[in-house]
Amino acid sequence: MEPMTASTPAPRLLLGPGPSNAHPRVLAAMAQPLLGHLDPAFLAIVDEVQARLRRLFATSNPLTIPLSCTGSGGMEACLANLLEPDDALVVGVAGVFGERMCDVAARIGARVTRVDAEPGTVLEAGAMSEAIARVRPRVVSFVHAETSTGAWQPVAEIAAAARSAGALVVLDCVTSLGGLPVELDAWGIDAAYSGTQKCLSCPPGLSPASFGPRALARVAERRRRVQSWYLDVCLLSSYYGSERVYHHTAPISAIFGLAEALRLVEEEGLPARFARHRRAAQRLVAGLAPLGFAPLVAAAHRLPMLTSVRLPERVLAGGEAPLRRRLLERHGIEVGGGLGKLAGRIWRIGLMGENAREEPVDRLLEALRTELPTL
Amino acid sequence: MEPMTASTPAPRLLLGPGPSNAHPRVLAAMAQPLLGHLDPAFLAIVDEVQARLRRLFATSNPLTIPLSCTGSGGMEACLANLLEPDDALVVGVAGVFGERMCDVAARIGARVTRVDAEPGTVLEAGAMSEAIARVRPRVVSFVHAETSTGAWQPVAEIAAAARSAGALVVLDCVTSLGGLPVELDAWGIDAAYSGTQKCLSCPPGLSPASFGPRALARVAERRRRVQSWYLDVCLLSSYYGSERVYHHTAPISAIFGLAEALRLVEEEGLPARFARHRRAAQRLVAGLAPLGFAPLVAAAHRLPMLTSVRLPERVLAGGEAPLRRRLLERHGIEVGGGLGKLAGRIWRIGLMGENAREEPVDRLLEALRTELPTL
Repeated sequence: MEPMTASTPAPRLLLGPGPSNAHPRVLAAMAQPLLGHLDPAFLAIVDEVQARLRRLFATSNPLTIPLSCTGSGGMEACLANLLEPDDALVVGVAGVFGERMCDVAARIGARVTRVDAEPGTVLEAGAMSEAIARVRPRVVSFVHAETSTGAWQPVAEIAAAARSAGALVVLDCVTSLGGLPVELDAWGIDAAYSGTQKCLSCPPGLSPASFGPRALARVAERRRRVQSWYLDVCLLSSYYGSERVYHHTAPISAIFGLAEALRLVEEEGLPARFARHRRAAQRLVAGLAPLGFAPLVAAAHRLPMLTSVRLPERVLAGGEAPLRRRLLERHGIEVGGGLGKLAGRIWRIGLMGENAREEPVDRLLEALRTELPTL
Repeated sequence: MEPMTASTPAPRLLLGPGPSNAHPRVLAAMAQPLLGHLDPAFLAIVDEVQARLRRLFATSNPLTIPLSCTGSGGMEACLANLLEPDDALVVGVAGVFGERMCDVAARIGARVTRVDAEPGTVLEAGAMSEAIARVRPRVVSFVHAETSTGAWQPVAEIAAAARSAGALVVLDCVTSLGGLPVELDAWGIDAAYSGTQKCLSCPPGLSPASFGPRALARVAERRRRVQSWYLDVCLLSSYYGSERVYHHTAPISAIFGLAEALRLVEEEGLPARFARHRRAAQRLVAGLAPLGFAPLVAAAHRLPMLTSVRLPERVLAGGEAPLRRRLLERHGIEVGGGLGKLAGRIWRIGLMGENAREEPVDRLLEALRTELPTL
């Protein structure tokens, strides 16, 4: 029993935009012997996961499930179920993941109207409301925690404007879920999706998602079937509902891992978990300032689990990638580079889930202090 | 560290149509600490997986990759990339998974012509050739190992007919890969997909897939983009090719598990592995005969890794589900019921990957001998 002997690399401290380090209990749960996907013992775990996800999303939606894909597949699932060709969609674009929504929706054949915000800032509720009033879209979608910029989008006002115009609201919670309050029912969100590899400290591979009654009513009224068989919520409901009819084979081990991750979340309690994320981010920002790294995002909209920082001149001079490589090779620490327009200009430092603690922050700061004088 | 204490069920011997039991080394590999999806150490494992999958599929296709979805998602990926709305498709339907191809393709907007075979039999090459000559389809698709019936479909003649008519060929290898020879290049297959939870003895969650040069040329000539952003091979190529550009976050732990499963396959060697599957199936069929279970499929087309059996009258009389439940609850053995038209009439007994050995066969036979007198 020597798995991966030749190639097992040194452990990494994963402080990029995700994956974060998985909790040892999550990894141990994934190594449990398999159960069949229709075994009553497995279905009991599925029931448990669904109940815990409902509490985490703060929703009573029965169809709250782990989709068998990553967060980007969850985005596609929400948009593909709610949109038909020629339906109008208003997308708030404040970074790469808002851009991605436009791309996904255009492939579905939707008529996409985008409302842009400068990367590092958030959407203005007024601009979104104006576009919603003008377009009268079928769906409004935007991102709660923009992973490409580290900006925290207020949700309630935009969601209310969308609903009062009769639109369904889709929210990307990939990076926020488990690290920030997500309140689907209070905010009036009709469909939302997340990922496991951020603040849940679980490996990537599943997309926790939730579909509300208005969303499912819309699906029931569709003129044509959902373009994706794999992601069709009508078919998924037959497995994740009371019938337990085979659709596709659920990713059993990943669901074992998610179940354990969700147990850890509830053992800690959400308020304590959110506070821990905030404290870790404050410690990071305070420690980076003397090294010349300045936050990209204004304090009011800065995410706790993902801090984007402008790079000091002495880092930019040598290119930022070599320094990230040295952090990885010499210190075993991964941080993320910029994405899209911000590539080469910022770093994205994640303190997600288990990593939102003092020790990872201090390890990173110590490594930077070691490396920076030698630039 | 007490994962899942309250709910951990007794270990199961998984002799249904999949998942099979994962090898302990595969489970241990999945419990390794995470790496980032752009970490050079992880990309080396991805390279290794791609090289081993090419050998297993017997192909030189560079784009041979683990898709981030289960086998049914792999089916959708192959059809969605190769088909545009109004393209003609000929599907061979000899069971539920051929049916599923029709459903998936119709949602893409393809014009589907189906060629049927009675469940338990295989497609006639002549009937497929006739349909291909008549329809002149863009794509021909069929199933190598029909998991709903246990029938083994000869591939070469149908694939040759399709290619000589200028059609692309899509082959479902979900249940065959790792248990039967799969020869993509020799057969002239343009796109194929499989699953990890059958003869690779890996948990479900990934779909090993391969796209050949003719398939990629077709994608390059498309009039409209692939309907699925998540499954678009153009985008997947940018991560799984030399550029290593972020598309979605790869399911890292599942890929660790697949890497280990593929190492196990090569340590054993394909000829020995295929022979082991054949021997186990022969032992099963021989042992079931005196108990009154008769194979559904004629010997020439019987799959080694999945044996479907008609149920004896004394089982049918009491309903087959209660007996399956007793096997699970009293003996920890899972076998599969019938699917679709065959529900309630057959069982599907999988001897896949690690389970294709004498001991699982004997455990099942012993359990049946114990239970049957009490019916």
